[in-house]
Amino acid sequence: MKEMHHTERYKIDIPSVNETIMADEGDILAEKILQAGIPLSLYCSQKGLCGKCFVEILDGKLPPLKEREKVFITQKGLNQNHRLSCLYRIQSDIRLRIPLESMIQEVPILHTGVESPVELNPAIKKFHLKLKKPEIGLPYSFQEAVENYFQKKLSIPLPLLKKLPGNIEKGWSWITAAVYNDEEILSLEPGHTVNNNFGIAIDLGTTTVVVELINLNTGETLDIETARNSQMTYGSDIMSRISFAVGDPKNAEELRRSILKTLNGMIGQVLTRNKISRSSVYEIVIAGNTAMNHLLLGLPVKSLALSPYQSVFSCLPELSSVDLKFKINRHGKVYISPNIKSFVGGDVSAGLAASDLENRKGNLLFVDLGTNGEIVLKTEEGFLATSTAAGPAFEGMNISCGMLALPGAIYRAEYKNQLVFSTIKNKPVLGICGTGLIDFIAIFLDEGKITPKGQIKDDAQRIRISDNISITQKDVREMQLAIAAIKCGIKMILLKRQLQFGDLDGIFIAGAFGNYLNIENSMRIGLLPRIDKNKVHFIGNSSIAGAKGFLLSGPTRKRIESLVKKIQFFSLASDPLFQKHFIEAIEFQKQSL
Amino acid sequence: MKEMHHTERYKIDIPSVNETIMADEGDILAEKILQAGIPLSLYCSQKGLCGKCFVEILDGKLPPLKEREKVFITQKGLNQNHRLSCLYRIQSDIRLRIPLESMIQEVPILHTGVESPVELNPAIKKFHLKLKKPEIGLPYSFQEAVENYFQKKLSIPLPLLKKLPGNIEKGWSWITAAVYNDEEILSLEPGHTVNNNFGIAIDLGTTTVVVELINLNTGETLDIETARNSQMTYGSDIMSRISFAVGDPKNAEELRRSILKTLNGMIGQVLTRNKISRSSVYEIVIAGNTAMNHLLLGLPVKSLALSPYQSVFSCLPELSSVDLKFKINRHGKVYISPNIKSFVGGDVSAGLAASDLENRKGNLLFVDLGTNGEIVLKTEEGFLATSTAAGPAFEGMNISCGMLALPGAIYRAEYKNQLVFSTIKNKPVLGICGTGLIDFIAIFLDEGKITPKGQIKDDAQRIRISDNISITQKDVREMQLAIAAIKCGIKMILLKRQLQFGDLDGIFIAGAFGNYLNIENSMRIGLLPRIDKNKVHFIGNSSIAGAKGFLLSGPTRKRIESLVKKIQFFSLASDPLFQKHFIEAIEFQKQSL
Repeated sequence: MKEMHHTERYKIDIPSVNETIMADEGDILAEKILQAGIPLSLYCSQKGLCGKCFVEILDGKLPPLKEREKVFITQKGLNQNHRLSCLYRIQSDIRLRIPLESMIQEVPILHTGVESPVELNPAIKKFHLKLKKPEIGLPYSFQEAVENYFQKKLSIPLPLLKKLPGNIEKGWSWITAAVYNDEEILSLEPGHTVNNNFGIAIDLGTTTVVVELINLNTGETLDIETARNSQMTYGSDIMSRISFAVGDPKNAEELRRSILKTLNGMIGQVLTRNKISRSSVYEIVIAGNTAMNHLLLGLPVKSLALSPYQSVFSCLPELSSVDLKFKINRHGKVYISPNIKSFVGGDVSAGLAASDLENRKGNLLFVDLGTNGEIVLKTEEGFLATSTAAGPAFEGMNISCGMLALPGAIYRAEYKNQLVFSTIKNKPVLGICGTGLIDFIAIFLDEGKITPKGQIKDDAQRIRISDNISITQKDVREMQLAIAAIKCGIKMILLKRQLQFGDLDGIFIAGAFGNYLNIENSMRIGLLPRIDKNKVHFIGNSSIAGAKGFLLSGPTRKRIESLVKKIQFFSLASDPLFQKHFIEAIEFQKQSL
Repeated sequence: MKEMHHTERYKIDIPSVNETIMADEGDILAEKILQAGIPLSLYCSQKGLCGKCFVEILDGKLPPLKEREKVFITQKGLNQNHRLSCLYRIQSDIRLRIPLESMIQEVPILHTGVESPVELNPAIKKFHLKLKKPEIGLPYSFQEAVENYFQKKLSIPLPLLKKLPGNIEKGWSWITAAVYNDEEILSLEPGHTVNNNFGIAIDLGTTTVVVELINLNTGETLDIETARNSQMTYGSDIMSRISFAVGDPKNAEELRRSILKTLNGMIGQVLTRNKISRSSVYEIVIAGNTAMNHLLLGLPVKSLALSPYQSVFSCLPELSSVDLKFKINRHGKVYISPNIKSFVGGDVSAGLAASDLENRKGNLLFVDLGTNGEIVLKTEEGFLATSTAAGPAFEGMNISCGMLALPGAIYRAEYKNQLVFSTIKNKPVLGICGTGLIDFIAIFLDEGKITPKGQIKDDAQRIRISDNISITQKDVREMQLAIAAIKCGIKMILLKRQLQFGDLDGIFIAGAFGNYLNIENSMRIGLLPRIDKNKVHFIGNSSIAGAKGFLLSGPTRKRIESLVKKIQFFSLASDPLFQKHFIEAIEFQKQSL
């Protein structure tokens, strides 16, 4: 007996990608394309709102253009054979072309040779929509008028609801909505303002703060502003700032206000330079270490400085920009990159987002070289993290001729028959920054001017580099301690997983050192394990790169939040073997395991 | 061949309910009990937090008491054979007793003979929990310490996070958390404060406001306060208040402040009387008509008064008590009973929650008799709603000797050889309220003093009732219009579904009339259809009853919100047949269809 219900089967031919898909009558074209593994953009979750999934129907039924399609076709200058595949129900064999613009867009967030693109899928999306005039007999509410367009329940802040009837009366029928996480309306604006959709990524460092202005529709970085963390006035290192904050609640508030003022000022500058209004900025993502993010949020920091070193939060839900007093859109959001543990903060989780260790194979080491060295190891067993107090020597602090990596700092040195060095921006020598110090020590070790134990052989206890620049015995000792902290951290994290240097498939070096760090010299002095140099990757400021990744991709946040929960942590300093390994590590040598 | 993996099957015997359940080794006891259809309390979603699902193990394995169980057993004075069934893994045959307290609790919300209990499952729940001291080597965050206890991600407001470390330092280890919707912490308090869990239900009427203080753990009403809506000063009816508000934004703000002050004052009174602090009140539910809820929220009301009569919102997500300036716990919530349509507001959706029409069978009519008469018909086809402008005559307004249903008002009259009447609280006669007017008209119609067309036969155009009380020709005309509005509404809503009076299986009368309304007289004058009197149910103030239902049951909110979306609406006044039916309805008569 034949089946009673019979649906027609049709053939969907996509010559450009050499695919032929079979589909039933009435199937949604977009869904069939996705099922075939073609990365069609899902930007608005198949609601016909974003106009991103257009296909050109070369052969097959062409249903009349829907109102939304007409508008997009005009805006984009497409020909009349284009249809939104998420609204297209299959009713014939089709041959079609998928324009490149209809595919998922990926944005690179690292700029250092390591590929780590994120899918452009920001938490904030803007859509152009038309509010229907209500009719007598069907007097739906203004809120429903918006919800009907989105075909889902949305939360709309009361202040926006308040203005909605008046604005519609003024003649708004086409409006632009900024939507957060597909569930909350942040803005309702007259006309077509879809293109004004901006976000701010912030690397909130102890010493330096970076603010990046980003177009949320394209992923493009429009501007970057770097400044000194204004809290430096209250203490150059984290611990002195914590002490200051713990001393008096007013001090903590002063620190909060100080950094907030800096950040709002920097945001103002990039916006002014790019002629963008604050109300077109809907989200800020902040990646900072635990102390920095706690101080910014006004959370108590005492527990960060006392054993067992607890942070107050790990993953926070999105916060309100107004509550935190950030000057962007008044319904804007602030996302804080999650803390892993008290000394492995949001800068590291952002770094993990940027380096995408989770999706790379093998035994991988992530090292953030800074005042606090954070080390994360990924193996088949999962992620293991620790932190090690390197001190500020890598940033040129506590070094007689040391300085931050600013113009005039010697950042690179070589021995080619004689000592040759370069300064940042080729400015006259002002001092030596971290990478320069590492190069000098490696050279002097080779020359025998410094012994493996770190002793300067010269009686003057000082090695002259130029007229007013030299390296003292004390400088070498400071560097030895900083290097030993990292060396010891790397060694112990590998020991915890019974790995040797040779088992490592990759090392990702994050931090301001960037590409300036000389790998050979770093290995020579024992800072980095001696492995195949091709396995060492500099990823630069991965904190700001990760913040950008979070800003451009909601799913990346979810992925890192769940990763953060799973990362195991061990406390280096409280490990009984720490003393032994640290003392061993003080001697410059080819590091061994 | 035998199966390789073999799990033991065990028998769970529950003599008190005559049930025997089979279970596999390792099954959770609570889940097996639920699967057997026994309504075990699910209060904390099986996390061992609420201590509500205790069973007494009469025979069978008794695993050692868990820490949480020990605490609850002491608190509740239970014997040592009790175990929390949500934490109990089956490992033997068991015979057990389920105490009544472990069953789902139902709370009646109507007090008028119509049964309509809700399951006690408030959106706000309080739990007593112990924060683990962090350990060196595992320094989880304070936020995680709370989340770990709940075994899920929770949002904690920044101000609560700020205080958490200090409070734990002060020696808090046992704390009580108030949790909203299983996802947001509203309060973290030292010690055991689970019993201090209160909510406020509000009926926000145009004329009268009712505030009810409710224990969210037991469902008990602790106190009720009734007051005049202070906005009466700005206009006794809705339309005059809307005109006032539309005139100037300052006026709208004045109306908002006025009602807010009244409500905060009333809340203060019930709390003071019951010695409850504002911080122990975590939620307010407000049921009011659209104009009243819009004015309270500061939303524009112009569109409510102009065709096509749009409200600004229908279903709002929970609002913050601080944003709305309600004086309860600073992280408290405010839930607004959803509006169905511009003239069928949150008071009616609360009424539908209270009457539970959705779960009753047959063709059912819900009529809210007030200045605005709202009529909802439920049939197999679904829900249909309309509203009809009855005017204020039922509230005694625009009637020469009319008054609100206050002490001294004639609320009931009979003819037993002579005219006999009663006043509210037996006070000396001051006037006649709505139910009294209905009785008098019915009696005078029977006596022939009033003709079916509403003409007073006496030349004086006035019927004397007592020394200073009489009913004038104008009074009769006012009542005719009010009655006709309701008559016409009921008739037309039935016509829309091709129903006749005889097809009705029940009429639920809501409104302040309560039990005072004489059914026979109401049918005599045509206000109610003539059907079997046993099918007519007075449900009293169903707006406050529904608000209480929403407060005590999160699931009821979800149910009514989705119902509200499905209710069809028709505009009575814009129906072409309205004029004809209205004119017909003006004549007193046995109403016919």
